[in-house]
Amino acid sequence: MSSLPQSTPQPPEAVTVADLEAARRRIAAEAVTTPLLAAPELSTRLGYRILLKCENLQRTGSFKFRGAYNFLASMTPEQRARGVVAFSSGNHAQGVAAAAQIFGTPATIVMPADAPAIKIANTRGYGAEVLLYDRYREEREAIGERLVAERGRTLVRPYDDPKVIAGQGTCGLELLEQAAARDLRPDRVLVCCGGGGLTAGIALALEALSPRTRLYTCEPEGFDDTARSLAAGRRLANEAGGRSICDALLAAMPGEVTFPINTRRVTAGLTVTDGEVERAMSYAFRRLKLVVEPGGAVCLAALLAGKLDIDAGETICITLSGGNVDPARLAAALESEPDA
Amino acid sequence: MSSLPQSTPQPPEAVTVADLEAARRRIAAEAVTTPLLAAPELSTRLGYRILLKCENLQRTGSFKFRGAYNFLASMTPEQRARGVVAFSSGNHAQGVAAAAQIFGTPATIVMPADAPAIKIANTRGYGAEVLLYDRYREEREAIGERLVAERGRTLVRPYDDPKVIAGQGTCGLELLEQAAARDLRPDRVLVCCGGGGLTAGIALALEALSPRTRLYTCEPEGFDDTARSLAAGRRLANEAGGRSICDALLAAMPGEVTFPINTRRVTAGLTVTDGEVERAMSYAFRRLKLVVEPGGAVCLAALLAGKLDIDAGETICITLSGGNVDPARLAAALESEPDA
Repeated sequence: MSSLPQSTPQPPEAVTVADLEAARRRIAAEAVTTPLLAAPELSTRLGYRILLKCENLQRTGSFKFRGAYNFLASMTPEQRARGVVAFSSGNHAQGVAAAAQIFGTPATIVMPADAPAIKIANTRGYGAEVLLYDRYREEREAIGERLVAERGRTLVRPYDDPKVIAGQGTCGLELLEQAAARDLRPDRVLVCCGGGGLTAGIALALEALSPRTRLYTCEPEGFDDTARSLAAGRRLANEAGGRSICDALLAAMPGEVTFPINTRRVTAGLTVTDGEVERAMSYAFRRLKLVVEPGGAVCLAALLAGKLDIDAGETICITLSGGNVDPARLAAALESEPDA
Repeated sequence: MSSLPQSTPQPPEAVTVADLEAARRRIAAEAVTTPLLAAPELSTRLGYRILLKCENLQRTGSFKFRGAYNFLASMTPEQRARGVVAFSSGNHAQGVAAAAQIFGTPATIVMPADAPAIKIANTRGYGAEVLLYDRYREEREAIGERLVAERGRTLVRPYDDPKVIAGQGTCGLELLEQAAARDLRPDRVLVCCGGGGLTAGIALALEALSPRTRLYTCEPEGFDDTARSLAAGRRLANEAGGRSICDALLAAMPGEVTFPINTRRVTAGLTVTDGEVERAMSYAFRRLKLVVEPGGAVCLAALLAGKLDIDAGETICITLSGGNVDPARLAAALESEPDA
């Protein structure tokens, strides 16, 4: 054994339910307490009680505003004055841009050129500078790091950050309170999963407040890194070259900070096909009257496709995590699934 | 003066807030308590606080389920066994059909052949018999009356009925409670108005529980019978031959039962063009992530078009009364108003 002092790796700052509660107070004045919506016809169709946590109705059209606003609200005024940077295919982009606009903070968002037009337009609409890159040829990290180095900007990570995770966790606090207000406790919660930030936030809320509720992630086929990583007990990447209409859920592998939280709390990861996602989007439009984007529809898709065996007496809560879909994309889903 | 006994006209049964409370208990297990949704970006855009009563998220996709279910729940089992009949362009049709399905009551719905396909399909989907008629050539009343006479059916009127009005009024009770839970009292409430049933129900709730809240109706151009009747102090019909995309709001004139309630409580009637309605539908889709049908978007249309002069400190609640729109109709609105 060497006698020299060892450099021990720094463990990521632990996130607790107290951080979620603090985040909730921070975001209260600006974020929407999204409805936990009853869906009696869907419940009849599925054969058990389902409640929909409508994060598509959150400010900016997705849950991402929660974490982004909590991050910016936690920065010092000096840090905020130097501005922020984010990489995102679109929902984190809008969340950061909208939060930055509220604080008057300069924001630069690095987005793939093939992101949905509505996401690019809305991000610009919040006053952010948008830099587009080629998803298949350029390294978005390099572009972002240059901005951090040259302009003194702060990078707002989409999921691997304690403040972002705590912000997303406010969705879990709300969900449990809203269920309790109806004298219900969710038997299972299903979460749309990309990098795992929303899952980790909800996992922390459940761990503290509803430990018997089982938690599941839902991912698109070809991007089931979380499902496989949970099964293997270690972080596995997706194979290169996969494609999915779920543009919000294309993270390469589970997060360094999120995975350790999720692996101790998630029962299993579910996977759905693009066709199952289109069916869920069509159902949401036709019957629920909700605009849900592909990545936001994976939990509904999993249930409509019968991927879990659920008893009639159970109460199931699912996230509809976002609604930022181009009209043409939704129209394609409605045409391919006219009787959903 | 004659000494013979006079036949005095029977006044319509008065509806009170107690009837609304009774209706609420009756529908509680089957109807959705729809969210009163905060919309911070819309509030910023308009310059005052706006809250959206999302009746498009009600069971069957419109508020009509409330009144229809309250009516059927108030019938005797013998009456229900003989079945019900309704005339409707679609939302009342779905409400009656869904309520009848829950009670196992036979339902026949007389609908115009040019009603939105989604409304006809959903009404049939609830197990009702649908009879289509030509809006411009046939008398729907005659078809319905024959069914009442021949089969002993009970007619469920779309708005001119105390039980239906009381059912719609549950929307007003919820709205006031949900606002109060945020320590808010609406300064004004705007209601989508066809025959005036939802307006009358909400008027009764406001009269009893929030008398200082001002109430407004919103109607499409060419079908502003309520606005003109309120101004004239008597029921006026629309001119024949009008056309509007707001298929849910094409009643010929204010109701006999609804108008006396509305005339004592409504401040004024607002009117919007089809173009203004399309802009509101597009805004709802793109920014609010809500599917709203033309007739359900008239209040949002009125506010986006600046038809009321509202102070920054006011709280305004509007109904989004339905979401049963054919995809092609919504796509047309999105195309004509891409930057709403």
